[in-house]
Amino acid sequence: MPKDIITLRAKDYSQWYLDIVRNADLADYAEVVRGCIVFKPTGYAIWEAIQRGLDERIKETGHENAYFPLLIPKSFLTKEAEHVEGFAPEVAEVTRVGGVDLAEPYVIRPTSETIIGHFYAQWVHSWRDLPLLINQWANVMRWEMRTRPFLRTSEFLWQEGHTVHATEAEAEEETLKILNDVYVDFLEKEMAVPVLRGRKTEKEKFAGALRTYAIEAMMQDGRALQAGTSHNLGQNFARAFDIKFTDQNNTSQVAWTTSWGVSTRLIGALIMAHSDDEGLVLPPRLAPKQVVVVPIYKTPDERVRVLEAVDKITADWKGRIRFRVDDRDNLSPGFKYNEWELKGIPVRVEVGPRDVEKGSVALARRDVPGKAGKEFVPQEGLTERIEALLADIQTSLFTRALAFRNDHTVEVSSMGELKEAVETGFARAYWAGSREDEQKIQDDLKATIRVIPFDQPEKSGKCILTGQETGQQVVFARAY
Amino acid sequence: MPKDIITLRAKDYSQWYLDIVRNADLADYAEVVRGCIVFKPTGYAIWEAIQRGLDERIKETGHENAYFPLLIPKSFLTKEAEHVEGFAPEVAEVTRVGGVDLAEPYVIRPTSETIIGHFYAQWVHSWRDLPLLINQWANVMRWEMRTRPFLRTSEFLWQEGHTVHATEAEAEEETLKILNDVYVDFLEKEMAVPVLRGRKTEKEKFAGALRTYAIEAMMQDGRALQAGTSHNLGQNFARAFDIKFTDQNNTSQVAWTTSWGVSTRLIGALIMAHSDDEGLVLPPRLAPKQVVVVPIYKTPDERVRVLEAVDKITADWKGRIRFRVDDRDNLSPGFKYNEWELKGIPVRVEVGPRDVEKGSVALARRDVPGKAGKEFVPQEGLTERIEALLADIQTSLFTRALAFRNDHTVEVSSMGELKEAVETGFARAYWAGSREDEQKIQDDLKATIRVIPFDQPEKSGKCILTGQETGQQVVFARAY
Repeated sequence: MPKDIITLRAKDYSQWYLDIVRNADLADYAEVVRGCIVFKPTGYAIWEAIQRGLDERIKETGHENAYFPLLIPKSFLTKEAEHVEGFAPEVAEVTRVGGVDLAEPYVIRPTSETIIGHFYAQWVHSWRDLPLLINQWANVMRWEMRTRPFLRTSEFLWQEGHTVHATEAEAEEETLKILNDVYVDFLEKEMAVPVLRGRKTEKEKFAGALRTYAIEAMMQDGRALQAGTSHNLGQNFARAFDIKFTDQNNTSQVAWTTSWGVSTRLIGALIMAHSDDEGLVLPPRLAPKQVVVVPIYKTPDERVRVLEAVDKITADWKGRIRFRVDDRDNLSPGFKYNEWELKGIPVRVEVGPRDVEKGSVALARRDVPGKAGKEFVPQEGLTERIEALLADIQTSLFTRALAFRNDHTVEVSSMGELKEAVETGFARAYWAGSREDEQKIQDDLKATIRVIPFDQPEKSGKCILTGQETGQQVVFARAY
Repeated sequence: MPKDIITLRAKDYSQWYLDIVRNADLADYAEVVRGCIVFKPTGYAIWEAIQRGLDERIKETGHENAYFPLLIPKSFLTKEAEHVEGFAPEVAEVTRVGGVDLAEPYVIRPTSETIIGHFYAQWVHSWRDLPLLINQWANVMRWEMRTRPFLRTSEFLWQEGHTVHATEAEAEEETLKILNDVYVDFLEKEMAVPVLRGRKTEKEKFAGALRTYAIEAMMQDGRALQAGTSHNLGQNFARAFDIKFTDQNNTSQVAWTTSWGVSTRLIGALIMAHSDDEGLVLPPRLAPKQVVVVPIYKTPDERVRVLEAVDKITADWKGRIRFRVDDRDNLSPGFKYNEWELKGIPVRVEVGPRDVEKGSVALARRDVPGKAGKEFVPQEGLTERIEALLADIQTSLFTRALAFRNDHTVEVSSMGELKEAVETGFARAYWAGSREDEQKIQDDLKATIRVIPFDQPEKSGKCILTGQETGQQVVFARAY
């Protein structure tokens, strides 16, 4: 597993990313299906870990899973005017079945507000039916012009929550609860990725939403990655699909809906937040395997003794540590070290004949490459030591990512400063510009307003573009 | 929740099934998307339980999950001649994207042998790459003429395993291992559904397979339901997609592949195997909730005391029993009993003010409706008692289903006997007929050969159609 196949981050960050995806065996380009990828087992296992962590939180906050059709009658898309405008250019259409043309084409869901809205209208009758709290795990399709594995693909996997509420306040509460208790909690605790939370501007909000909230993560090149969004849809979709309920006073009311989602793009976020020039770095809580044990031996006799020791060492790991013993005979220990570094397993344990004699092992942490991250420790108490090490790696990755973001976030007070700041990271600025101003900055600097952060300054200041006094700060960045 | 909305099985089994699906809130017809259904939360939770049980077994037998594209270039389907013949009439085609016609249409996967074969050809080079053992959880689409919730829908959810091997013997071993260690084990242990295992005839095998093995379950109307299939694809797909490897003698060899799948149709099997005229009956090991506790009270004071007792009773259930306390205030206990009977929760615990005084509860088992299944027991030792009861229900359901199948399986020795037997169940018969003979029986009796069972008689006998002496018995039945 030659290391020089990975481009250095400093040289070409974008190529580095593609090299990690290919060499850690996470995905394969599906050239024959435009803009799609194959999620290979190593990559898909990360998605399974993400699903587990999110699904648990989605259920703990009172939601149930369901599954709605892949195909949506094309006419449904047009029922919400902004929505169709946003999605029509990128939908795939099914026009023929078994060789026969259909009277009305279907689109493959780019997102499911419309088809789910159609059913909710039939399920919701009374205030007693509310709130309706449902999530779906599904594939969706948006024909993208420029694609990149995990970050932007024509087909991707995601969860999409769709809820119905009796009041605007309840819908707003739901929208924020998902952002904070599900998305932020998951990304920061499990993925060790610190996120900035806030509201999207009118220009950047979801097609058809009243308000969109988002979490934004900083990648190691200083760019932002939108990691999840939660939309208060107001009554827009409820009106379009006729979702009404009879309230406690026996009056018919239009309902309030929300939707929210995160996708396989999180795999891309994970790669770009933590990995290094040696390969993938996975946070222990999310890593499908947390520890790899590499036995070292030359003779058959050594093999027996070393594997015996490995059995003894790992005897109480089951249920505590997710591990793999790499006892493949045809590969050298060095080859194995490289492979597991490349694939991001958080901790490596090496056991050789001398370790058997001395009752020791070598312990290497993936987040600190080379000799600095390796120590020789006694076999006694190893399980507890590894558990502590895994917890330490998890914390370190988060702290490192947070420090990186802080180091690459500046408050700017002029357009010149903004231009410079978005070259390397996030720029906080007072902002009172229009939607058109926002577009102009995007055209000029390739940077967009990522969010209007929840934490706002106490004092007002001057808009960096118009000079107008405003209480509102926003965060600009270039984004994936 | 009025009971008379469920048609009696004896009156109209087919309508009874639809009534269960609707009234237990398992699925909703999606009239706007032809032949599709919405998997509602109660129904989808059963699928999640099925997924967990299968995924565990699929991984324990050495397979990893991955994900391949939904869309398949239309030309791929035609690469395996029998395959395209089998699936072309029911594929949905994507011909347009963002309003622009595509040069080559895609089909939505009806199954993924072709697209996966395409990638496997690129991944497999040497004998060291084999076996390649991958599974995928996905949605697939087959435009069906006559649909029925769960049993036959245009879009359905499933797992499809696809493996590559160096020899025919290894492919055969894999095909049978999946059938026995994954499918039979799961259906019999978790779903409590006994299955008949065997090989499909040439007429009934998968389009493109060398040999297809299947498991068949008997429903309560005596019909067979094909619950899972496992195909030894021989070298058919490997040849069509050029999956080759260099063997240990450095010679290029065509590989051997298998594929195998079970789908959301299993939800239909579960319903039809165990449920009764009162509603759904779920086996405890698979039931999303195993126990519902219904507190009974009239006054606020009673409410406090009863709920306190419920807290005490259920204190040590977490992690041992999956339960729900139904403390909804606006519904009567009777209404709740009916609802949970309809929805199939295996055990109900009733706690009222007198139970609080006497330290007792009422315990009702769903598989024995009415008074016969209800007993009054002390609160002391309740957890262990319920665990034992759940285990007993699981065994009873399996035993009952097995006894039913045995009672409705006969060995027949003439066409007259066959005709009569398939009216009520399975018919075992000596068979040496041709593919055309098989078709004729299907046309005449609406019955097909479900499998050539693995357990064959020691003596030979006369083919029921041709009178020819043969060692082969087959099982005929009408099927879903």
